[in-house]
Amino acid sequence: MLKEGERIDDLQLEGLKIIQDPQGFCFGIDAVLLSSFAKAKYKETVVDLGTGTGIIPLLMYGKYKPKKIIGVEIQKEVADMAKRSIKLNGLDDKIEIYEGDIKDCFKYLGVNIYDVVVTNPPYKKILTGLVNPKDKKAISRHEILVNLDEVIFSASRLLKGLGRLYMVHRPERLKDIMLSLDKNKFNPKRIRFVHPSYDKAPNMVLIEAVKAGGDFLKVEKPLYVYDEKGNYTEEVLKIYGLI
Amino acid sequence: MLKEGERIDDLQLEGLKIIQDPQGFCFGIDAVLLSSFAKAKYKETVVDLGTGTGIIPLLMYGKYKPKKIIGVEIQKEVADMAKRSIKLNGLDDKIEIYEGDIKDCFKYLGVNIYDVVVTNPPYKKILTGLVNPKDKKAISRHEILVNLDEVIFSASRLLKGLGRLYMVHRPERLKDIMLSLDKNKFNPKRIRFVHPSYDKAPNMVLIEAVKAGGDFLKVEKPLYVYDEKGNYTEEVLKIYGLI
Repeated sequence: MLKEGERIDDLQLEGLKIIQDPQGFCFGIDAVLLSSFAKAKYKETVVDLGTGTGIIPLLMYGKYKPKKIIGVEIQKEVADMAKRSIKLNGLDDKIEIYEGDIKDCFKYLGVNIYDVVVTNPPYKKILTGLVNPKDKKAISRHEILVNLDEVIFSASRLLKGLGRLYMVHRPERLKDIMLSLDKNKFNPKRIRFVHPSYDKAPNMVLIEAVKAGGDFLKVEKPLYVYDEKGNYTEEVLKIYGLI
Repeated sequence: MLKEGERIDDLQLEGLKIIQDPQGFCFGIDAVLLSSFAKAKYKETVVDLGTGTGIIPLLMYGKYKPKKIIGVEIQKEVADMAKRSIKLNGLDDKIEIYEGDIKDCFKYLGVNIYDVVVTNPPYKKILTGLVNPKDKKAISRHEILVNLDEVIFSASRLLKGLGRLYMVHRPERLKDIMLSLDKNKFNPKRIRFVHPSYDKAPNMVLIEAVKAGGDFLKVEKPLYVYDEKGNYTEEVLKIYGLI
């Protein structure tokens, strides 16, 4: 079940576990906060675009028990780790990994049929020469294989009318996000900024957008990660399942 | 100098005063925060679109002493109050009021020549029947005579290349603002949300955008109006000139 260098981490949620490689790519707080910001109902189907080691399907299954979650991952080794984590948790009938490209996954997974798309895509524009395009971490962080517009386009193809897209991204991409959502017939519904602490600029933004949805946007109260003493805030402790 | 029902208020800034009608329209915190968020240099020229009683030109003159500020106001009685306030402060050579329409003011004021445009425009979309289209307050709050897109278009016509637009608006219009800025060749540079307190959703947003500017956006740390005891925060007290 485990390859060299890998370990099993407990997700503090319904006994779920995940296989990670500490030298490779471990999930971050962005995936955890997105899994909590996103919602899915019992009868709904979910696609996670760029699922990595499957952290978001595992957390969303643990929280919401939706009918089916499909994780899309292009990197063979990473997709393999995700598949083994799903087996480890006995969730083969609930979570599937599709090893393929976000850009055309809807051709295989189906068009206009999913209730929810969730994504923690690469955040950064490519600055030529600064990243190694074969590096696993670089692929998950920089827009090497897929860019923001392509992720949102695919989400729009996958989703039913009034289907929901949940995304975590960087605040500095806010204009790009709004333009791409609009181009792809999404209307943003909820935006929540994540701040390291209450007197700091946000370093993440959580967005819910509705395909062909109405024009109603709410910017919600901030989500603070640390309190004034440098400890996790109560809200973040709850999201992590620690209290 | 004063008409019936009017009074003179002290602006707590360089001895400046403003004529207001408590039964009509008095300036709010949005104008004060915008005047502080906006910047203007000594040699720069500034246009305030929808100046009302001239609060923003007065505050910006008090803070930055730019070469010239022109306030555009379509409502005759309100423009007249602004003109009397300017005279009262002896600033006729520094601040001018143009009584006319935001939508075509650039035809009279000039195209591609200003360094800064500042605007506290009507925030709300018109919901037919709910507002009295002749009411002075309604005109300043609802998009009866001018809408967001028209304000941003005029700002773009007035400004030089790399000229700066400073605007205060409502967070729920964020998508509309981003789309309109993009359409009119602006790039947002700074966004700052204003929250009643640290655990509340923002109810205003301050935006700086640059005409034909580079693609660099910073969402800044939040601006909180009240502290946990319900008093103005130190930052707001400073902006008001009270400490």
